[in-house]
Amino acid sequence: MEIEKLSGPDIDKALVELNQGLSEPWALADGKLTKTFRFRNFIDAFGFMTKAAIWAEKQRHHPEWFNVYNSVRVQLTTHDAGGISEKDFALAQKMEKVSAP
Amino acid sequence: MEIEKLSGPDIDKALVELNQGLSEPWALADGKLTKTFRFRNFIDAFGFMTKAAIWAEKQRHHPEWFNVYNSVRVQLTTHDAGGISEKDFALAQKMEKVSAP
Repeated sequence: MEIEKLSGPDIDKALVELNQGLSEPWALADGKLTKTFRFRNFIDAFGFMTKAAIWAEKQRHHPEWFNVYNSVRVQLTTHDAGGISEKDFALAQKMEKVSAP
Repeated sequence: MEIEKLSGPDIDKALVELNQGLSEPWALADGKLTKTFRFRNFIDAFGFMTKAAIWAEKQRHHPEWFNVYNSVRVQLTTHDAGGISEKDFALAQKMEKVSAP
């Protein structure tokens, strides 16, 4: 099944839904779905990454992410689609779930 | 015990030692000890990160790193020392060990 990138209006709509109830919202930066997660310490940050990594591998859809100590900057895009797709929003939602303490 | 940053000549010397026998060398970039590791796939890349993460936490010295799929770009510096210290070279050496297939 081919993955299609979402249109601008569809991304805006999905972003509003995704950000409902979040104290730290996701945003678009460099054409990617982006958020910096902050944790208490490195163990919590890497624990989050480990949970997200296993789920990402299972879905065959991987993040770009940068970690230093307690922070993890995530950037999501779908290379095969040439933009942001539903897969990115699904991964973002899963990351929200597994980032909860 | 205070950690001291290494002098330029000491860094150059330690870098030559570190890179002995490595097909992909470490280099200095933006004042940090830097290398991009490449693996067969995401599982191998994240497996490397997991091994390195546990060791880093044990040593209380953490990397800056960026992962996308099979690649991990590592940047090491010692914030408390304001530069590169022996801790960075120790972490780099450990990363070489745990990056082996």
